[in-house]
Amino acid sequence: MKKIFVIGIGPGEESYMTPAAKEAILASDVVIGYKTYIDLIPHLVENKKVIDSGMKKEIERCNLALDLAEEGSTVSLVSSGDPGIYGMAGAMLEVKGQRDSTVIIEVIPGVTAVSAAAAVLGAPLMHDFTVISLSDLLTDWEVIKKRLHLAAEGDFVIALYNPKSKGRVTQIEEARDILLKYRKKETPVGIVRNAKREGEAHMITTLDEMLQHPIDMLTVVIIGNSNTFIQGNKIITPRGYAL
Amino acid sequence: MKKIFVIGIGPGEESYMTPAAKEAILASDVVIGYKTYIDLIPHLVENKKVIDSGMKKEIERCNLALDLAEEGSTVSLVSSGDPGIYGMAGAMLEVKGQRDSTVIIEVIPGVTAVSAAAAVLGAPLMHDFTVISLSDLLTDWEVIKKRLHLAAEGDFVIALYNPKSKGRVTQIEEARDILLKYRKKETPVGIVRNAKREGEAHMITTLDEMLQHPIDMLTVVIIGNSNTFIQGNKIITPRGYAL
Repeated sequence: MKKIFVIGIGPGEESYMTPAAKEAILASDVVIGYKTYIDLIPHLVENKKVIDSGMKKEIERCNLALDLAEEGSTVSLVSSGDPGIYGMAGAMLEVKGQRDSTVIIEVIPGVTAVSAAAAVLGAPLMHDFTVISLSDLLTDWEVIKKRLHLAAEGDFVIALYNPKSKGRVTQIEEARDILLKYRKKETPVGIVRNAKREGEAHMITTLDEMLQHPIDMLTVVIIGNSNTFIQGNKIITPRGYAL
Repeated sequence: MKKIFVIGIGPGEESYMTPAAKEAILASDVVIGYKTYIDLIPHLVENKKVIDSGMKKEIERCNLALDLAEEGSTVSLVSSGDPGIYGMAGAMLEVKGQRDSTVIIEVIPGVTAVSAAAAVLGAPLMHDFTVISLSDLLTDWEVIKKRLHLAAEGDFVIALYNPKSKGRVTQIEEARDILLKYRKKETPVGIVRNAKREGEAHMITTLDEMLQHPIDMLTVVIIGNSNTFIQGNKIITPRGYAL
């Protein structure tokens, strides 16, 4: 059966990779993914063709996966987190559609970055939340700003993906300015880098002071709602239970 | 060390339970959780005290876990999905704070319901999204309605948790009415019951026709944004790549 697994391995360490992800890799002839991740699982890729996707663009990678599957290989397209959240699942299905292919695409979900970051911070996501990417490479910045306004007005807990990169530094500043129109400057903010993998670091701060801490592309930023509070070294958004 | 693990086992089957979750259970003296889930992992709970939390309320369960940990036991509080998303992590930390306890609480994230449901449907979450619970047991319905309006206006993909229960049937109807003020009736909607576990069933439909299909508490409903489309038997929200 011609098949591509689009696999999320979670934060990046084997302890958060699901057995389903492992089994799919073991069932594959070819594994495409970043060397950093593949290097963590050498015992799973023995005797397989491994293609380091480090330098490949997303659509190229999907076309390559489809070429190989059409030739009869079972292919794993491996990435971190959950491939269904800003991940490779969409591009892979779009490429399949564009090429009118009959290859079967199976998405294997993983522990996504917002779950990993929340676990490090305590319990910030106990209530309705939004996930917003601040990357304006593929999305108009005006659309992102509108979403920040509406999410803030709705008192959603807000998780920001791709908050800042080397060449993109003002978006997180503008995002904070927007949020301060709706929320108190004491609003708890959690900043987590490399959540639940090697090099994990986190900071619990406030909307007022968040920009004093390092933020980059490996960071998820979580902004509390109007009920979120800091307890010791944790952030908690109450669900509303009577204690 | 007095410790409580708040563990998410993912959708419910062992293939989506992380090794970190298993290791935490194995390291525990007491495991508290629904019998349905514990029964799936008999080899992990041999020689352990197992407490079926089926009949216990959330806060009671947290107090019990804390009592046992204070007495010196390492305790696992086990639930499905991710305990950090509408789960037990918040209540457990709140109870710890209320009792001014020094017990260490560690949250072990899992594959959350929205990731599992999205994987079944294809790739609906490729862009900014919101997660909203329609349960008004702990949240004022007016707050939930306001959030639905704002999320719809912001063109977020919208995932609805707890869309309907036996005693709560009108919320999903009202939610649909609100969304129809902002989105076309052809907007793709995915309905997934028991995502990535036994009894999985799903339906791909539209905002117009979604109420003709069964929806209950085991269901997650995902409503596309203005760019979401149906391709074959999958829902795709394009990320914006040029193919």
